[in-house]
Amino acid sequence: MSEDEATPASRQPVALVPRCTDREYEADALAERRAFIEAHTGAHLAHVGAYSIPSRAMRGNIENALGAVQVPLGAAGPLLVRGEHAAGTFYVPMATTEGALVRSYERGMVALTRSGGASARLFLDENRVAPIFTFASLESATSFTRRLPEWLPALRAQAESTTHHGRLLHVDPFLLGRRVIVSFSYATGDASGMNMIVKATDRACRWLASQCDAQGYQVFSGHSSEKRASGVLLAGGKGKKVCAAARLPRGTVRAVLGALPEDIAAVCQNSVLGHLQAGALGFNAHLANGLTAIYIACGQDVANVANACVGITQIEVVEGDLEASVTLPSLTLATVGGGTALGTAGECLAMLGCLGAGQAPRLAEIVAAALLAGELSMAAAIASGDFVLAHETYGRNPPPAQRS
Amino acid sequence: MSEDEATPASRQPVALVPRCTDREYEADALAERRAFIEAHTGAHLAHVGAYSIPSRAMRGNIENALGAVQVPLGAAGPLLVRGEHAAGTFYVPMATTEGALVRSYERGMVALTRSGGASARLFLDENRVAPIFTFASLESATSFTRRLPEWLPALRAQAESTTHHGRLLHVDPFLLGRRVIVSFSYATGDASGMNMIVKATDRACRWLASQCDAQGYQVFSGHSSEKRASGVLLAGGKGKKVCAAARLPRGTVRAVLGALPEDIAAVCQNSVLGHLQAGALGFNAHLANGLTAIYIACGQDVANVANACVGITQIEVVEGDLEASVTLPSLTLATVGGGTALGTAGECLAMLGCLGAGQAPRLAEIVAAALLAGELSMAAAIASGDFVLAHETYGRNPPPAQRS
Amino acid sequence: MSEDEATPASRQPVALVPRCTDREYEADALAERRAFIEAHTGAHLAHVGAYSIPSRAMRGNIENALGAVQVPLGAAGPLLVRGEHAAGTFYVPMATTEGALVRSYERGMVALTRSGGASARLFLDENRVAPIFTFASLESATSFTRRLPEWLPALRAQAESTTHHGRLLHVDPFLLGRRVIVSFSYATGDASGMNMIVKATDRACRWLASQCDAQGYQVFSGHSSEKRASGVLLAGGKGKKVCAAARLPRGTVRAVLGALPEDIAAVCQNSVLGHLQAGALGFNAHLANGLTAIYIACGQDVANVANACVGITQIEVVEGDLEASVTLPSLTLATVGGGTALGTAGECLAMLGCLGAGQAPRLAEIVAAALLAGELSMAAAIASGDFVLAHETYGRNPPPAQRS
Amino acid sequence: MSEDEATPASRQPVALVPRCTDREYEADALAERRAFIEAHTGAHLAHVGAYSIPSRAMRGNIENALGAVQVPLGAAGPLLVRGEHAAGTFYVPMATTEGALVRSYERGMVALTRSGGASARLFLDENRVAPIFTFASLESATSFTRRLPEWLPALRAQAESTTHHGRLLHVDPFLLGRRVIVSFSYATGDASGMNMIVKATDRACRWLASQCDAQGYQVFSGHSSEKRASGVLLAGGKGKKVCAAARLPRGTVRAVLGALPEDIAAVCQNSVLGHLQAGALGFNAHLANGLTAIYIACGQDVANVANACVGITQIEVVEGDLEASVTLPSLTLATVGGGTALGTAGECLAMLGCLGAGQAPRLAEIVAAALLAGELSMAAAIASGDFVLAHETYGRNPPPAQRS
Repeated sequence: MSEDEATPASRQPVALVPRCTDREYEADALAERRAFIEAHTGAHLAHVGAYSIPSRAMRGNIENALGAVQVPLGAAGPLLVRGEHAAGTFYVPMATTEGALVRSYERGMVALTRSGGASARLFLDENRVAPIFTFASLESATSFTRRLPEWLPALRAQAESTTHHGRLLHVDPFLLGRRVIVSFSYATGDASGMNMIVKATDRACRWLASQCDAQGYQVFSGHSSEKRASGVLLAGGKGKKVCAAARLPRGTVRAVLGALPEDIAAVCQNSVLGHLQAGALGFNAHLANGLTAIYIACGQDVANVANACVGITQIEVVEGDLEASVTLPSLTLATVGGGTALGTAGECLAMLGCLGAGQAPRLAEIVAAALLAGELSMAAAIASGDFVLAHETYGRNPPPAQRS
Repeated sequence: MSEDEATPASRQPVALVPRCTDREYEADALAERRAFIEAHTGAHLAHVGAYSIPSRAMRGNIENALGAVQVPLGAAGPLLVRGEHAAGTFYVPMATTEGALVRSYERGMVALTRSGGASARLFLDENRVAPIFTFASLESATSFTRRLPEWLPALRAQAESTTHHGRLLHVDPFLLGRRVIVSFSYATGDASGMNMIVKATDRACRWLASQCDAQGYQVFSGHSSEKRASGVLLAGGKGKKVCAAARLPRGTVRAVLGALPEDIAAVCQNSVLGHLQAGALGFNAHLANGLTAIYIACGQDVANVANACVGITQIEVVEGDLEASVTLPSLTLATVGGGTALGTAGECLAMLGCLGAGQAPRLAEIVAAALLAGELSMAAAIASGDFVLAHETYGRNPPPAQRS
Repeated sequence: MSEDEATPASRQPVALVPRCTDREYEADALAERRAFIEAHTGAHLAHVGAYSIPSRAMRGNIENALGAVQVPLGAAGPLLVRGEHAAGTFYVPMATTEGALVRSYERGMVALTRSGGASARLFLDENRVAPIFTFASLESATSFTRRLPEWLPALRAQAESTTHHGRLLHVDPFLLGRRVIVSFSYATGDASGMNMIVKATDRACRWLASQCDAQGYQVFSGHSSEKRASGVLLAGGKGKKVCAAARLPRGTVRAVLGALPEDIAAVCQNSVLGHLQAGALGFNAHLANGLTAIYIACGQDVANVANACVGITQIEVVEGDLEASVTLPSLTLATVGGGTALGTAGECLAMLGCLGAGQAPRLAEIVAAALLAGELSMAAAIASGDFVLAHETYGRNPPPAQRS
Repeated sequence: MSEDEATPASRQPVALVPRCTDREYEADALAERRAFIEAHTGAHLAHVGAYSIPSRAMRGNIENALGAVQVPLGAAGPLLVRGEHAAGTFYVPMATTEGALVRSYERGMVALTRSGGASARLFLDENRVAPIFTFASLESATSFTRRLPEWLPALRAQAESTTHHGRLLHVDPFLLGRRVIVSFSYATGDASGMNMIVKATDRACRWLASQCDAQGYQVFSGHSSEKRASGVLLAGGKGKKVCAAARLPRGTVRAVLGALPEDIAAVCQNSVLGHLQAGALGFNAHLANGLTAIYIACGQDVANVANACVGITQIEVVEGDLEASVTLPSLTLATVGGGTALGTAGECLAMLGCLGAGQAPRLAEIVAAALLAGELSMAAAIASGDFVLAHETYGRNPPPAQRS
């Protein structure tokens, strides 16, 4: 570390958040850390300390744990879903601080339910990691690319040796000069499965590197678009591809959504121009709003909103009725693992009958139907000019006196 | 509602979540709704009901309130920031259920702090709404577009008549055949300000429509890219444009991040290829991860992750050291309004000294520096091969026995 | 060149195409080069040698000149244009080898002309170069960015000292960590002007570098998107922003285009989905086809098709009629300089009354109207199912016996 | 046509370009049309009439033929290519009016040749059409999507019944609510094949529509990105995927390209930022320039530049040398059909030994190597500051006196 000597800052003591080794997730360790933060920052962490979920259960989900934040939870519904995995009427948990959001989604859900419900179909279900290999030359990279199909069985054996749940479905190479990106696609069951498939892919790559003349590989190339928006997500690959659709009778649209089908469809036509002019990926009204609220409620990896909200909404008039759909090509979801079982998350998943193994496809169909409701409600609010009014009514905080 | 008669589903009674009018935000109303949900879904909402923030304070943030969800909170730091608005050492609140995330950001923060801290600069601060006007002809649309500059003072007066805080900075037309998208850009102070500027813009548009021969306008065209990713965000416009940067001495990089500068920079080079091949917007390792965790902790509008995580990370070797930066062109942030004052959110903002009026620029600089830490730590983990190991160590949930 | 000694290939004699110094553009020099190529490749260059344009006139347009290629030229029209710069009926020269293309554009032009013509409006006219400056730190880069407005007059003086025709309109900085892209926007008159504005910008940058602590600059950053497609082009900047639009009566649509307005509009609706799914920039049927044919005919810089064909087509039904427009935000065009005066190019520009100074705005309006015709015709052909038939009829080469 | 009666313009006589039925491609018909155009426009079409290619041979390539335009042709080389289909030294025909372009590509070719040549590899070769099917409901669309694999053999039989040369390789569905885009991928031999595969796909779709409950289909959805830029092209599909790469010794780089490897690589690093900031597709210096010049020379469908120039260039320093590659994922090329055999085009293809059946893979490798040369030369010109100077030297037109 002699290079550091010229850098005085590096010798200054750095006050780490207390580790409390061996009792990291005990309540008193959390208290000790809160005290440390309060001492260093002047903040008072009373609410943060008022968590009800057992602190030991946080292991694997957080480090340097202080407690928990509380996000207001509302329920939107009823939402009648006619899926292959989800069939019935649901009340959807949404955690948000954006006033009017729950009311808006509820309105769309009532419109769908009165129209006979939303169909939902899960079409593709795979998650991807895309390592990149470097070779000395284009010739070597080409030869590797051409041999890849014959290595698939061995790759599958290597990858699946690290996991009980993940299955390697296919590998797809993208030759780029002397480099090759190899996209590994997996079935991951009910888990989001990123850690699982990264580990499996790393194992497979280590084997692969031993079979060829690669100079090296890097397990992430960025191509799989985990936690970011990209065009490739539109073709599916980061989780579940699911659609929801419905036909809403003209009278229901007018009565519940307060606008004519033609006007709602015109909103979408105009918005296509805005999306094109902006260079947007996909097309939608506000998929991210509902998705984020459900993700926070249900203990999902919320940062996946960045990739999962890339989708395509369609709203059109058919024989005077309103025909609408959402397509979510890369919806990341889990009903096991991650934060899914933790306290309130488990309760919210239970509200949807989606807690535990085997429930991820059901959750995907419900989410798609819920987001369809939000798209309809937003488009109708723009069409009718209600948008500003609704936010005036529901988006107002109480006077400070009531907020303590 | 006579059109509905042909649609039997629409006559079925729909069981709405209890409104509890006049006592919507009283604790017993929340309890009544929980009971309703429990009765309809079979879920048990004990943790959801164990909130500590006063239910009355939720008004304006949620409808059909049931209680609150709890998200584990950790603190990462110390993070030395050398900004114009934020100068000092910070501990950053992060709410997540993704194991290893807080530890990874902490490592990056330590590396930055030992390197003398991260510089941060706020460069642009405006929020946008982009209505679209329709005309009978290209001729009318062109004439409107050309006259727009002369209307600016009146538009400003109209827009600002609806708000104490927002200021209309400029309007920019995009002519598209017989339609014109007009992007309104505002300074919104310390609030995220979407509701404020939509209301102001709607007022201005109503006036504008009275001055010209527009057939109509729609207050949202989608061009402003609220809650979605698009190319136009890279030029700024959805909130704050902020950069953080640092030069990390070679020895510190090696000691704290466990990899050589050259190897970390090579990770980024390879990842550019993955981003290009995927058609990604911007370039980054995992900006969405840290941003989401801070957003949830600090009561932000979390769905803004969809737009705010579009950014550009640069990591390169300069004279043997590591030079790194993040540029966040459209970072949405608030220190007043929305969910910022609610219980845990207020406490988390207080941890950063960022609660209340005048603090949004400071928060922006801290967030940029924190995300820079995460980019460095992730790139180093990929370079060193630590990524899989770290997730094995920190991403493991406890056995079920400990989780109840 | 001693490093080369280890590389035997580098010592092999390399047979350059004959320079014929001092008589490079004389007919006998071209003949000598053709003989050289014939000797080295076995090709027979009779048609290449059968050019009628004076070889001396090729100076400044080509090096290692052999002669000229011949591209079949057709005329499509009549096209009635109602622009501000172009008003009247035109016959548009199109050079192509794609059978059915001229006939298809002609059909659209007849439909427009019978409908009273196409409106056309030029809205923005500027060309850009975007150098990138590198600094030692984010602090320096920020300070540079903030001072840029005060340097504008001096930059203008520097830039305009190198040209009689270009005027520097504005400069726009994009801060990216310790680098700053500065987009220079110019009015370039009737020339495409790239060489002119690169030279002017280089001069201005040299001066700028002397005023600040930049480590260096690079005159091209790629941001201006010369000769490539990018989202930023949609907001204008690579030449002229021009729209053409028309309302076609229902009967004319049916009679001339052979399809109903509703069916043509539906083709566009479906195609929006294809564009979204593909991650396309802009939206159009085949702008590149007509644009390329006109560019080749008129001696334009044909490679600009890559940027100029990024545009947005709208086709919709209004009161039973068909309302259509094209918006070309970055149309590069010239009526002086480059290849515009060379033999056939000058003749083709003369067909449009667009040869020489002052004619570029007129050419832009005609081109936009012509491309609108092609969009309508293609959409109608898809709607009616004619597409395959038309290509069977017009896209068939004669039997080989007739082709010598 | 009674609807037209209210539209006086539609009754005006429209003067079509003379058809000259039964002698459309005879020399006197072309002369008659030139006379018509001269009479209507005042242009003098002497050079246009001075074509040497037989007018009868233009059938299938142009309608309303007037003659031909002449584009100056130069040769760049020598270019040593080490491909699987192209091995040897080539002189590349380039038709352009952009001064300095041929000289610049020539410089890159000399650098490659002195470095032992450019490797080239063809990796994928398929062309696509993507029709879109509409169904009454999501349920029907899903069921169609799931059954598609079983229909493949029948689809192949239908499609291939219309062509001797095209082979249907695979079909890939993209479900979007109640619509399904089906991408048909074909091998098209040495033709560009668009007309061929559209016809085949139309036949297959007609059969498919008879097997399912589709409401209809449209043969183009825009997804295949013919003649436009889109992200999906990066994964291949519009023709040939081909890479060229080379390692240039440090000394050769310095001697021939006039810049140090480090400086050339730095140009690319900076340019990545410009591309990201612009929201560009792919990454390159000026692929479109060389591609367009070769396309015009060789009788290609030049409008394909819009899709074919989406590619990725890599330039980096390896052990002091310069390592460079270009990847062209969707390169459209033909050596038979279209304009390939017409007069000068056939001669230019013959210069490369690429005229006729079986030569398209060879042409693809040569084109990739040629474009690599141009990327290197441009990056070097930026690095050394030569760019402005080169255009001063080669981009100057002669005084008007010499241009008649």
